[in-house]
Amino acid sequence: MATDQAEPEGDGTEDAYERFEERVQRISNVSNAAGVLRWDQEVVMPEAGTPARAQQLSTLSSIGHELLTADETGDLLEELEDSELSGEQEAVVREIRRQYDRETSVPGELVEEISETTANAHPKWKKAKEEDDFEEFAPVLEKLVELKREYAEHVDPDADPYAVLFSEYEPYLDLETAERVLERLRDELVPLIDAIDDSDVDLATDAFSGEFDDDDQEALARDVLDSLGYDWDRGRLDTAPHPFSSGTQFDARVTTRFDEEDLLGSITSTIHEFGHANYTLGLPDDGYGTPLGESRDLSVHESQSRLWENHVGRSRPFWEGFLPTARERFPGLAEVTPEEAYEAANQVYDDNLIRVEADELTYHLHIVIRFEIERELISGDLAVEDVPEVWNDKYEEYLGVRPETDAEGCLQDIHWSHGSFGYFPTYSLGSVLAAQLYAAAEDELGDLSEDIRDGEFDELNGWLRENVHQHGCRYTTPELIERATGESFTADYFLEYVDEKYGDLYDLS
Amino acid sequence: MATDQAEPEGDGTEDAYERFEERVQRISNVSNAAGVLRWDQEVVMPEAGTPARAQQLSTLSSIGHELLTADETGDLLEELEDSELSGEQEAVVREIRRQYDRETSVPGELVEEISETTANAHPKWKKAKEEDDFEEFAPVLEKLVELKREYAEHVDPDADPYAVLFSEYEPYLDLETAERVLERLRDELVPLIDAIDDSDVDLATDAFSGEFDDDDQEALARDVLDSLGYDWDRGRLDTAPHPFSSGTQFDARVTTRFDEEDLLGSITSTIHEFGHANYTLGLPDDGYGTPLGESRDLSVHESQSRLWENHVGRSRPFWEGFLPTARERFPGLAEVTPEEAYEAANQVYDDNLIRVEADELTYHLHIVIRFEIERELISGDLAVEDVPEVWNDKYEEYLGVRPETDAEGCLQDIHWSHGSFGYFPTYSLGSVLAAQLYAAAEDELGDLSEDIRDGEFDELNGWLRENVHQHGCRYTTPELIERATGESFTADYFLEYVDEKYGDLYDLS
Repeated sequence: MATDQAEPEGDGTEDAYERFEERVQRISNVSNAAGVLRWDQEVVMPEAGTPARAQQLSTLSSIGHELLTADETGDLLEELEDSELSGEQEAVVREIRRQYDRETSVPGELVEEISETTANAHPKWKKAKEEDDFEEFAPVLEKLVELKREYAEHVDPDADPYAVLFSEYEPYLDLETAERVLERLRDELVPLIDAIDDSDVDLATDAFSGEFDDDDQEALARDVLDSLGYDWDRGRLDTAPHPFSSGTQFDARVTTRFDEEDLLGSITSTIHEFGHANYTLGLPDDGYGTPLGESRDLSVHESQSRLWENHVGRSRPFWEGFLPTARERFPGLAEVTPEEAYEAANQVYDDNLIRVEADELTYHLHIVIRFEIERELISGDLAVEDVPEVWNDKYEEYLGVRPETDAEGCLQDIHWSHGSFGYFPTYSLGSVLAAQLYAAAEDELGDLSEDIRDGEFDELNGWLRENVHQHGCRYTTPELIERATGESFTADYFLEYVDEKYGDLYDLS
Repeated sequence: MATDQAEPEGDGTEDAYERFEERVQRISNVSNAAGVLRWDQEVVMPEAGTPARAQQLSTLSSIGHELLTADETGDLLEELEDSELSGEQEAVVREIRRQYDRETSVPGELVEEISETTANAHPKWKKAKEEDDFEEFAPVLEKLVELKREYAEHVDPDADPYAVLFSEYEPYLDLETAERVLERLRDELVPLIDAIDDSDVDLATDAFSGEFDDDDQEALARDVLDSLGYDWDRGRLDTAPHPFSSGTQFDARVTTRFDEEDLLGSITSTIHEFGHANYTLGLPDDGYGTPLGESRDLSVHESQSRLWENHVGRSRPFWEGFLPTARERFPGLAEVTPEEAYEAANQVYDDNLIRVEADELTYHLHIVIRFEIERELISGDLAVEDVPEVWNDKYEEYLGVRPETDAEGCLQDIHWSHGSFGYFPTYSLGSVLAAQLYAAAEDELGDLSEDIRDGEFDELNGWLRENVHQHGCRYTTPELIERATGESFTADYFLEYVDEKYGDLYDLS
């Protein structure tokens, strides 16, 4: 039937989009299959399975790469970019174009060399850390820095190489934004932490001391997930040495770990991973297989885990509401008050050297230090051999503590052994974004304290579903933030949040 | 360096073989990845994960099919078939040629139609079984029969269609062999079972009656696997509604199930699945990714599970050795003697209607009935609507019992809803081969009773490793049997074994 309405180019475009979508779904399914294999490897695979699993994952990765970088993908992208598409279709094309351009710009041999070098770097890093011997790791780190510089050069010879690497994890927030935010965190958190250090207030530190049986901790972790509204029909809880969450909107799993002496750690880690899985579960079912049903990048993902971990799980009303449940599993907590639990969950440790053990404030100085060092490493302003000293100097400058060994200094994190330069900043950006989103949610829904105290999370989660999760990659990250909060990305809300919370906790005037 | 020795065609062949092997390994890795996804689906996947998992599996299956049937595979096969290859290389080419010919001969649309029809048939069958309503299943069964006939026609228009379908599960044992063996089983087992029925001996039936806690059953299943020598570094035990084993030589997992009223069932099922996994674990590590490191077909696989389940796990010395362990987990078994346990594990139930609950003798009549019916279904000599009556008549004829419902008659098994016609016979062939292999092992190693009583399985397993497992698909099934036993495939040993064992148990003269 003929109409006068402006129409897409007719069947041609529809056919092309259909073929394109099929290809995209195929790539997505291969990648999701690899995700299942990695979950299996971390959680249930017997020890000796590694060689076969490595080959399976490498095959799936090659197949995904070949599907993405095939000429047909390029041809379809060009055809579709010249066609009239719906906004959703345009978003899918935008996302695949970005991945296509990146993956086709880097020669296969370089990708392979990086992959081999990181495979080799991991055991070297592990040994170096175990033996506190930076020299063991230095040569391969140097090699990785060179290779990643070369990689960035291929992707965009005109750009700051570090910006190119950063954009691999966070393609839509530019490096200037990240830098501005991190500098502001440094400039405002250092004096705040100093003030806390000078404060006379000593927060109760033994509310959660003692030994806590692993099985009971697991039961409590399940209580936490129940209370937050985790959908067990679409998920599960297991243990893993390094907790993570993974999966799709149909099956988003959480892992956690239990340490008999650290009950608080397993609770906050479980809530953190819930935040990640809950984002995944909020992606639209009918978008499965394309970027419309996939999560935005690392900062947005981390915003979801940090929002639940910090704004919910480290809040006073959470502990007022949740402590009775914890006491049922651990009668030894009978004497702990909600206020003590709240304080224990928010102590600031200014003498801690380890990022993953850091509190909500000093955490960002750990990140700033890594950010500054890896920027200079990639630019060539810092030699690998000088990393330990610069690291230690910065810890002394920003945190007032100096690592005595490299194992608890620049060797503590796995990321560089993966060649992941530019990853660390997304952790802090996630916290900052969490605060901005939480403020916008409260702006619309009103103070959420009572809900949190009552274990009522539907309103908060509904807001996140509507404003963040359901959109998948429909919008770029800045667009998503703007739509959800009415503002561009800003550290204001995070700094307000920590000023108010820690000002109150430590009685700062 | 020039030599006078006959040489392969030089670098050309080596290059071609290398490219071929790489392709084969890629196909194998895709298939093994799918295996992990299926394990996950059966054992740990949350309920709602199905839609995404179905897409992931379908994508992997398409990719594997495309890699196998690509022109390049055909070209490489032709080139290599004209080249001088090692015996091992020839075997790999032979196996891939067979798969290639089959998969390229069937049009994609037919494969897809079969796949859609079976997806639809499964819930119909389930409903029909639940509601004891064969009419519900009949139309889709008819459709599947037609489609599978058509499928067979494509693969080999000159062959008996049922033989073509059978060869999908058992490509190297021809249908005449299978038929000869099954007819012999029918002809000799019917009078043996009649004699047992007439015997005055009543084997103790309540040795394992009572309620057995699931957790204790699991502990005992682990004891069994420990005792048989299962390598936990390369495997794990989980529960699944329909026990299976899956994986590779690096990671071969067992599943089992527990029924509080059926301790014996969980023990024999665990031993059965151990046999499958143990075969997989015996495949050579360096063959991973090609048929040299993959197991032979269903009958050989089943021979391994049946050998351990029946020749070991249902033997008198096994119960003499294992009962003390069972008593530790279940003190209620204190009064049961090894002889009673042995008898309980070998009762012949001539009034049982259900294949999966059958004993070692009547089991094969269940198979013969299915074999006869599906042959006639495929040939067109039997109409789908007449299946229930023919089924019931045959049960009456061979087993002396007539099902009162189709749910406990021709609807009991899932296989036809998968379109798997020709699968059933491999179960019986596996038992028959198990006896032949076990006899050959004892011929070489001497009577194994003492080893079994002492829980010493290294010699038996060493023999299996050397004569069966390590060869992967290096030899065809008849070659493998001939090399392992010095004879071609024969039912002699199975019939000797059951005559002797049941003659003794039931005091037949």
